[in-house]
Amino acid sequence: MDTRKPLPAVSGTSELFQLLRDGRPRTRTELADVLGVARSTIALRVEALMALGLVAPVDDAVSTGGRPSSRFALRTETKVVLGVDIGASHLRVGLTDLGGIRLQDGSRNVRVTDGPEAVLNAVAEVGDELLKRAGRSAADLLAIGVGVPGPVEHTTGRPINPPIMPGWNGFDVPGYLQEHFEVPVLVDNDVNVMSVGERELAWSGVQDLIFVKVATGIGAGIISNGTLLRGADGVAGDIGHIRGPRGEDLPCRCGNHGCLEAVASGPAVALKLQALGRAAKDSLDVVDLVQQGDSEAVQVVRQAGRDVGDVLSACLSMMNPAVIVIGGSMALTGEHFIAGVREVIYSRSMPLATQHLQIVQSASGLDAGMVGAGMLAIQHALSPESIDAMLAAGV
Amino acid sequence: MDTRKPLPAVSGTSELFQLLRDGRPRTRTELADVLGVARSTIALRVEALMALGLVAPVDDAVSTGGRPSSRFALRTETKVVLGVDIGASHLRVGLTDLGGIRLQDGSRNVRVTDGPEAVLNAVAEVGDELLKRAGRSAADLLAIGVGVPGPVEHTTGRPINPPIMPGWNGFDVPGYLQEHFEVPVLVDNDVNVMSVGERELAWSGVQDLIFVKVATGIGAGIISNGTLLRGADGVAGDIGHIRGPRGEDLPCRCGNHGCLEAVASGPAVALKLQALGRAAKDSLDVVDLVQQGDSEAVQVVRQAGRDVGDVLSACLSMMNPAVIVIGGSMALTGEHFIAGVREVIYSRSMPLATQHLQIVQSASGLDAGMVGAGMLAIQHALSPESIDAMLAAGV
Repeated sequence: MDTRKPLPAVSGTSELFQLLRDGRPRTRTELADVLGVARSTIALRVEALMALGLVAPVDDAVSTGGRPSSRFALRTETKVVLGVDIGASHLRVGLTDLGGIRLQDGSRNVRVTDGPEAVLNAVAEVGDELLKRAGRSAADLLAIGVGVPGPVEHTTGRPINPPIMPGWNGFDVPGYLQEHFEVPVLVDNDVNVMSVGERELAWSGVQDLIFVKVATGIGAGIISNGTLLRGADGVAGDIGHIRGPRGEDLPCRCGNHGCLEAVASGPAVALKLQALGRAAKDSLDVVDLVQQGDSEAVQVVRQAGRDVGDVLSACLSMMNPAVIVIGGSMALTGEHFIAGVREVIYSRSMPLATQHLQIVQSASGLDAGMVGAGMLAIQHALSPESIDAMLAAGV
Repeated sequence: MDTRKPLPAVSGTSELFQLLRDGRPRTRTELADVLGVARSTIALRVEALMALGLVAPVDDAVSTGGRPSSRFALRTETKVVLGVDIGASHLRVGLTDLGGIRLQDGSRNVRVTDGPEAVLNAVAEVGDELLKRAGRSAADLLAIGVGVPGPVEHTTGRPINPPIMPGWNGFDVPGYLQEHFEVPVLVDNDVNVMSVGERELAWSGVQDLIFVKVATGIGAGIISNGTLLRGADGVAGDIGHIRGPRGEDLPCRCGNHGCLEAVASGPAVALKLQALGRAAKDSLDVVDLVQQGDSEAVQVVRQAGRDVGDVLSACLSMMNPAVIVIGGSMALTGEHFIAGVREVIYSRSMPLATQHLQIVQSASGLDAGMVGAGMLAIQHALSPESIDAMLAAGV
């Protein structure tokens, strides 16, 4: 199966599943109205889903006088997908049905630096185990979504010069996994995947959202008009190397100076606390110090929040999101970091762009990546392209 | 006809017209492949367009043995749209067919400060005149696109607190024009409309483009994945009030200090040249001085380009466009301004985001607004919603 095609934009007919996957019965007209597409287009799509057994008519409570039921619902339980979150030192895998209900999940301590074969073999093992535990077969699996901690060429699913993933550059992640599971494999960077997961878990009605991960690195996933933005080279949202606001000329691992990441990431804040005599090696030490009430740690963290807020105020002017979500380990410092973000955004931005804006801490925690990867898989599985392919293959 | 619905995203089936409107004959399968949507969806859409007389079969050169022709083409000449560019002191109107071929155009010196009735009456007059000159009737008109110099609530077409448009706040632009022309009216701000026009005229294959207008104000129109971004409140692209890079604390008309517009717009540059003893009242005086080779004017303009480039380098990291187009009166200073933009972008941005990036001067000149407004009208006219409405109305 060809997985090299670009993911469909989550709009128009591909939004059909968003409506259907809650399992609630609806008529074609209801769907057409909500999605703003032609009823005839919906009818055709529903017919295809019925032929595949993914959608079934639902008995109406009130008799329709012998006419066939006009309402139908997605049989979300018929098929499953895997969502895979590959982190620096461990991976998590979730098995969900097409309604996004999690059936099983599991994890494995594998370092991404062990290389793609070792990591993806572990993914396959955990995937098999989850299917078995859930009493499902590989034939029930429709797609796999994978998030990795580095840039990915979206059309091929291959990582491109990922700084913390030695051995993965250009590796055919979909091809390798497809030797084990013969289904489409969608690969994206971790922040994009987390933004999809966060929206799924906490902001399902929101069309314009920026998810910012502040941890070892700083990056953003941008959902605009309901669609994950990737940009011309697939590196949209790479905000960690925008210049920080206060002229701090610290060297950045990217080779430039003064990048946001060099002044406000977890390691940057830890360095500043070391200079103040604290034993802070990384983000988690910073979180500890803040939770212990160390006032200098609180101040440094708040300033990091301001620096991130300054860059985000520019992003806000560009994108006009309804929600900015702050995630990653630095968000675990609680309100201190986010208070700095809010302080600068509200002082720097135009009223029209902030009147309805919410700036919040991530609600999805460690699940965002795994859930988002599963969502990419579900979106693909229920896309027009995928349904056509299934019909053609007589699945 | 209800024009309050949001514009369809220019993706999926609504991209159909992008392919068809060159008038080249194509098969359903060709269209389905290129658009990445189901052949059945395309077939349905084509059937609807045929029923409306907008699409017709084309005789194949090679005999098909009595089978009906499988290729068809848009009859671009059958219907027309109006594209209206309302500027501060004059308006321009273009009459084009569905292929975007301009049939007639005209202009009128009307100040936007004369208020909506005066301006829109002039639009109606010019529109009537153009239809007459082209030998077309109002029945041939499918839609009108309008660009205005201020923020617009996209769903209703009403300007929202537009600073240079007294009397227009909340005015029902579509409703007023529909008293004269009974067709859908799409209204958007001038920079959004210009970005659509620039793409149409010079970058038709490009999916990710930022158009930046640097004139009395500074703003951007963002096309991402082929779709014009509007954001949650319709103010995406409002980059003029992002803080400029060098800590210059100049007051901005927005009430804040140090905004890009306060340091790098046409009036800001003119002020700086006044301080150097030059008689520069506005952008056009600045352009004159630069064209005369005034070396201090060149230096100030180049610095303004650097300041704009600094903000754009952040936009670039966010959006990862393939093309950044610089338009507006300051772009008329030629290479000096744009050299400053390039200098900073290439020094500040990640290689992955700039490897294929082009930074260019606007090619569309004064036409961008009028052409873009016409494109909005064509996109709407050939959208699934509009075609359904026409079928229902038996047009």
